[in-house]
Amino acid sequence: MSQSTTSEFLFGRSSSTSACPKSKEEGEKMQTMEEVFHMNKGVGETSYAMNSDVQDNIISVGKEATKKRIVQALCSSNNWPVSMAIADLGCSSGPNALRVISEITDAIYATSRLLDRPAPELMVHLNDLFGNDFNTIFASLPSFYKKMKQQNNTNNNHNNKNNNNNGSNCFVCGVPGSFYGRLFPSNSIHFVHSSSSLHWLSQVPGDILEGRALNKGKLYISKSSPQSVLNAYSMQFKKDFLNFMEIRSQEMVAGGCMVLSFLGRNSLDPAEPHACYQWELLAQVLMAMVSEGLVEEEKVDSFDAPYYAPCMEEIKWVLQKEGSFILESCEAYEIDWDGGVEFHSDSFKVLSCGERVSRTIRAVVESMLESHFGSHIMDELFLRYSELVEHHLSNNRTKYINLVLSLVKKGW
Amino acid sequence: MSQSTTSEFLFGRSSSTSACPKSKEEGEKMQTMEEVFHMNKGVGETSYAMNSDVQDNIISVGKEATKKRIVQALCSSNNWPVSMAIADLGCSSGPNALRVISEITDAIYATSRLLDRPAPELMVHLNDLFGNDFNTIFASLPSFYKKMKQQNNTNNNHNNKNNNNNGSNCFVCGVPGSFYGRLFPSNSIHFVHSSSSLHWLSQVPGDILEGRALNKGKLYISKSSPQSVLNAYSMQFKKDFLNFMEIRSQEMVAGGCMVLSFLGRNSLDPAEPHACYQWELLAQVLMAMVSEGLVEEEKVDSFDAPYYAPCMEEIKWVLQKEGSFILESCEAYEIDWDGGVEFHSDSFKVLSCGERVSRTIRAVVESMLESHFGSHIMDELFLRYSELVEHHLSNNRTKYINLVLSLVKKGW
Repeated sequence: MSQSTTSEFLFGRSSSTSACPKSKEEGEKMQTMEEVFHMNKGVGETSYAMNSDVQDNIISVGKEATKKRIVQALCSSNNWPVSMAIADLGCSSGPNALRVISEITDAIYATSRLLDRPAPELMVHLNDLFGNDFNTIFASLPSFYKKMKQQNNTNNNHNNKNNNNNGSNCFVCGVPGSFYGRLFPSNSIHFVHSSSSLHWLSQVPGDILEGRALNKGKLYISKSSPQSVLNAYSMQFKKDFLNFMEIRSQEMVAGGCMVLSFLGRNSLDPAEPHACYQWELLAQVLMAMVSEGLVEEEKVDSFDAPYYAPCMEEIKWVLQKEGSFILESCEAYEIDWDGGVEFHSDSFKVLSCGERVSRTIRAVVESMLESHFGSHIMDELFLRYSELVEHHLSNNRTKYINLVLSLVKKGW
Repeated sequence: MSQSTTSEFLFGRSSSTSACPKSKEEGEKMQTMEEVFHMNKGVGETSYAMNSDVQDNIISVGKEATKKRIVQALCSSNNWPVSMAIADLGCSSGPNALRVISEITDAIYATSRLLDRPAPELMVHLNDLFGNDFNTIFASLPSFYKKMKQQNNTNNNHNNKNNNNNGSNCFVCGVPGSFYGRLFPSNSIHFVHSSSSLHWLSQVPGDILEGRALNKGKLYISKSSPQSVLNAYSMQFKKDFLNFMEIRSQEMVAGGCMVLSFLGRNSLDPAEPHACYQWELLAQVLMAMVSEGLVEEEKVDSFDAPYYAPCMEEIKWVLQKEGSFILESCEAYEIDWDGGVEFHSDSFKVLSCGERVSRTIRAVVESMLESHFGSHIMDELFLRYSELVEHHLSNNRTKYINLVLSLVKKGW
């Protein structure tokens, strides 16, 4: 759920807990975002695995688009495909990692049955950054294959001539690396899915870094941010998304489909609450801790999130400039900050809404906050954050806006 | 460096530290070899990463065959390939995991330069069991790509039009699962390499399990083993190797090449010292510990290693029966039990020869011994083993015999 290029990862120019560069040489030794950023590992209280209901909800809203496009990719060529290559970009490592794959393979098997054709062999590529916990995904594969085998035996008896020794004709592999770089050989991928990942930029916008402390007391775009900050974020998004689209165009076959689901906004104003208030409240907590001497003000001033919630106009500008994909549909969904009550796992339900939001955000951003502010303030920071969020949501109905784009590669 | 099927992993029928099945139902809950077996993780004193000089030496002796066959695979088709898919089966996770890949890619780039052709895009699949430490391999990929980029910039300027954002046209992924099952779609792989892995069987031979304690006081074939034990091991190897070849035949393209390097023997006699004495000495240590009441005799009687060192006659029998590969060459190399002095890393050099052998074997077999005998005896077991090996090697020049097979898939 998190990606970047290999460029230096600088949340701010002047400080980093682990490496505070004084010169260019030292700066070059700093860890890149690729090396630092990862969802919280394991299955403990603050882990991503235990706090990914929001992302699960986001996958749910994109489910229909995913099903529709995978069927389109399956039926797009003149000949029924013998094999298909599928990629999930920013797969993360919690229960969601294999959920998307299950839905995609289910749709392929159901369509094959419906049309009475043999299900194609599926090569499934799970991608996330080098620091993602692939071992945990791989450890869950035997039971994933077992379940798939049982389903195949029940539903698909007349179609399983191609099945492998796993009892399925699905082969899962892990592809580590940033999706802002090439991951696959040319013309090799038939279907790309990505959920809750593309709102992460490859880096903090360069112009913000150059004009140090342009965004004082803030972590992201805010009502008080100068226009130069807004422009820098928008430009970085366009650059990254254009790069992403150009690379996918090289990797995908003509007629291949792509479903991209990520946080964005409905308004042209990048400072509108739905697009940035989760960062606004985090900045408020940090500034309160600054006033109590718990955090250095300079550290807050020098941190900017490598994140952007784009609007459709920015997205369409990039798609038009890149030119090799048709935008088949684009939908926007409101998502509760805590994922919505109906999606909560039992352990999550007993928490207050503020705690749920705080845990959800902590599981995602802790690795990058830790590397900048130090691990010692994390418990206090997110305790205060949960209280502030609770208070905020009791007076406001701020939600995430999640965009789901369906794209088809031209050329067939 | 270790593989099995999903069948139950029973070192012995009647005992297992973690799960001693009393009924079929309980037995079915036992962990499979796929789940139990892995090289010792991490980078500590007993880790595989720090104790894999022998396997490194084995990769070295297979280097020329690997180079020769990758060039053959590259030049086998009528058209120069745009992309190639390469698989390393049983890659493990130490420094050796990416070493083989470096050698393969170097050979491809050198050949491309020599023939003044653009280097093909390479999809490299690293395979090992589900429990292998892929995270550690993936963490070392950024520096692997960086090194490849530097080499490309230095040597290959006129050929790097295909290069990706990593600066190389090589894409590495991890494919977890047993190589005794299907891992890849049909007709998708151009080159297969496997080193120090195929001497691991998919399971302890079934006939030995049925005839409980047939091989009393031994862990593997021994001079005193009854003929039924010898036959059972040979049959299990043939069954597994035939399965391996049939599956690779499905996965590989016509003209694709395969280099398989694994422990075997020169003699027809499976009980000859070069083929089994490492197990013989381990059994002696365990039986000494039985006599002191440190280990239950029944535990030794019920353990049999899922290992086999085949002779060329057995291998050729399988190749002929499977029928879709040509054996281009087969070489046998003697390998010192401690890897040979010239290959030792500094920390390894200061140890006695017995300690080196003991650490090498411990790094590989500890996970399976631990699950049967318990972790509490491991330090004592391998301390005694190092002393016994030291004593043995001072009087005997027992070595491993490593076989290197080069195969080409027919049909082009």
